[in-house]
Amino acid sequence: MNYSTMTKQQLAEELRKLREKYEEAKLLGLKLDMSRGIQDKDQLDLTQEMLTILHGGSDCISENGIDCRNYGLLDGLPEVKNIFSDILEVPAQNIIVCGNSSLNIMYDTVARAMLYGVGDGYEPWFGRKIKFLCPVPGYDRHFAICESLGIEMVNIPMTSEGPDMDMVEKLVSEDDSVKGMWCVPKYSNPSGIVYSDRVINRIASMKPAAGDFRIFWDNAYVVHSLYGLPAKQLNFFEELKKYGNDDMAYIFASTSKISYPGAGVAVIASSDRNIAYIKNIMKIQIIGHDKLNQLRHARYFGSYEGILRHMEKHAAILRPKFDCVEETFEKEFSGLGIAEWSKPEGGYFVSLNLQNGCAARTYELLADIGVKITPAGSPLPYGKDPNDSNLRIAPTFPPLSELKTALNMLCLCAKIACAEKICSERE
Amino acid sequence: MNYSTMTKQQLAEELRKLREKYEEAKLLGLKLDMSRGIQDKDQLDLTQEMLTILHGGSDCISENGIDCRNYGLLDGLPEVKNIFSDILEVPAQNIIVCGNSSLNIMYDTVARAMLYGVGDGYEPWFGRKIKFLCPVPGYDRHFAICESLGIEMVNIPMTSEGPDMDMVEKLVSEDDSVKGMWCVPKYSNPSGIVYSDRVINRIASMKPAAGDFRIFWDNAYVVHSLYGLPAKQLNFFEELKKYGNDDMAYIFASTSKISYPGAGVAVIASSDRNIAYIKNIMKIQIIGHDKLNQLRHARYFGSYEGILRHMEKHAAILRPKFDCVEETFEKEFSGLGIAEWSKPEGGYFVSLNLQNGCAARTYELLADIGVKITPAGSPLPYGKDPNDSNLRIAPTFPPLSELKTALNMLCLCAKIACAEKICSERE
Repeated sequence: MNYSTMTKQQLAEELRKLREKYEEAKLLGLKLDMSRGIQDKDQLDLTQEMLTILHGGSDCISENGIDCRNYGLLDGLPEVKNIFSDILEVPAQNIIVCGNSSLNIMYDTVARAMLYGVGDGYEPWFGRKIKFLCPVPGYDRHFAICESLGIEMVNIPMTSEGPDMDMVEKLVSEDDSVKGMWCVPKYSNPSGIVYSDRVINRIASMKPAAGDFRIFWDNAYVVHSLYGLPAKQLNFFEELKKYGNDDMAYIFASTSKISYPGAGVAVIASSDRNIAYIKNIMKIQIIGHDKLNQLRHARYFGSYEGILRHMEKHAAILRPKFDCVEETFEKEFSGLGIAEWSKPEGGYFVSLNLQNGCAARTYELLADIGVKITPAGSPLPYGKDPNDSNLRIAPTFPPLSELKTALNMLCLCAKIACAEKICSERE
Repeated sequence: MNYSTMTKQQLAEELRKLREKYEEAKLLGLKLDMSRGIQDKDQLDLTQEMLTILHGGSDCISENGIDCRNYGLLDGLPEVKNIFSDILEVPAQNIIVCGNSSLNIMYDTVARAMLYGVGDGYEPWFGRKIKFLCPVPGYDRHFAICESLGIEMVNIPMTSEGPDMDMVEKLVSEDDSVKGMWCVPKYSNPSGIVYSDRVINRIASMKPAAGDFRIFWDNAYVVHSLYGLPAKQLNFFEELKKYGNDDMAYIFASTSKISYPGAGVAVIASSDRNIAYIKNIMKIQIIGHDKLNQLRHARYFGSYEGILRHMEKHAAILRPKFDCVEETFEKEFSGLGIAEWSKPEGGYFVSLNLQNGCAARTYELLADIGVKITPAGSPLPYGKDPNDSNLRIAPTFPPLSELKTALNMLCLCAKIACAEKICSERE
């Protein structure tokens, strides 16, 4: 029965029962973690043979004859570029292969714009009023980069097919202090939304007021489907070219959730001009990234097809966990009118929207019985959810049995928070 | 016979003979490289077993129970901190273990100062007049960081025991736009000079005009001795504390010339306050560096003693090459009055000072017969050697037989350049 149509007495009785269960749960001494999108142990074991794939000597020579143990090759191994070229549908020459962290590349890309500007003829952003558009809910670490560097963030609501493009187009075309926009175009963090071709076309065809407006296209989950092949999307890189917007975007990806979160390889892709500009500054920063680890990846996966085959193994491990979220939410929340949630086809998260004003309380209740989720507000700029309604669920790390318990506790706490809210509003 | 005391005729005859040899050399079609301080193939093979030392599963767990394959542990593995703690004589808690490049850490440390300032209460350096003191000759990549970020460089002459401290103290204490100083304290690049305890004490006890003056102490060759154990120096970290200058320095080191130039691990060490400040910004930039590679290093080397034993193997390969430089220079230059050179006890370079005005010409003559050395001027800020006298010799990479040829060619070209110079001056 819908909480909001319950009588005062019915709701009080419901709340009493929920609190009884909560007191019982307290006694269990739980210690469960659904807070971050990380691989579980079984996933980590999938790539085991990669660890010993290089044996030294001639084994460490890349296909262009470079000894990967030594210095050099700023932009990375051609064999890794080729794989990411297929993954991202971007020419290999437009890719730089870096170290183990795409977050690091994104931070450095923003920092570079602050210190030098985004290209020849553009001023450094430092000391100026800079705004970034942030589709919400989104990835907390994107927002942390902006906050750290004093970049003002503007919330953009997400629709079921991507950011609200009417709002984006208006802001980008009218305000030349709008210099950036974060996008996670496929299996978006945390909603799982796949940007539609219509949205991608509208993004690629924008006419920004600022010549140095840049899109940070974080394709973190580009091959991370749960059911079958990855979703097919309009080629953003090519689409940009159609509108003469070649330089308008930086594209990022990594193997953090393909091989190892701590020891994968990450790339940036962009126009010829942007890549040349980046390399010209990057060469001051580093002689070359870890090519041995790049070579391990190339040898182990071999090709895009090899990556896809490998992702099926990840999906087999993750599917039951995402199914468990859907089933539990459906069973526990259905008909209560207090919760809506995403049903992602890929990625690492489920986005849960509770009745307004109930997310922080739910987080708090959960924490008190030993269940850790991403803090309420985290998926929004400055950690502030104006509706206090969104929670990010990261179901991948805990084993299935623990996940079930954690999800039941989450539902219990969410119900308590919502019932309390409705009660208090009636007083 | 000394070139400067030769008669005009004697010198002309000498030059004729040299040029004859040069014409012969041209026909050899040489392709030799003494340009960068990199390991040769035999050195790269020394660490071969490290490549397959991790097999997956429980093997990948650090001593503090972290699965190194997954995310986390921003400041690196305790076992690697412990080894660097012994190498640098700095407490483990004052160390952050990063990725494969100390250059990257140094760049990021300067960039962080530009964007945020060096600590709470200090202004960002961006947009202000910032000067760095640069002992010369020095490391070209240090100077490139300054040039790239618009930092003005001030040349400081090197004495046999380190930078000219009278000049350093005066500038640091009187000019509050002096914010930094580069130091390679042991087996300095390129001169091989080991800073004396007296110099280290004077550096540590300075009273800078700028509260945000910082020393960039690049201890790149801390264990890289050629003959016996590494030189023992005053503990800089402890010395800073004595004078209340705890926060005044960042210390850098790496295994680039211990394990692999392209795939080692690098660290930064500093005061408690600096480390906390750095981590607080670094956590925005990256979740954690490659811990699997850190673990490989810890497992393979085991301890500081393990590192020292390993460095003996490097020294055994490198000693004949450095001996060859010394013997060739002694044989070819002795008594001519045109060249002085360093006789390093460690590190990767020999610094050659020719008669003023002869370095660029020597470089050019060498390039034309297929012998590559570091471009003249490179070891000085802005690539400009005011005396046009210094050349950096990097003897480690070529096999001994090639090195011998390359060195003979270098001596030939240097003699031509100097003889030409003297002739032209007499006209």
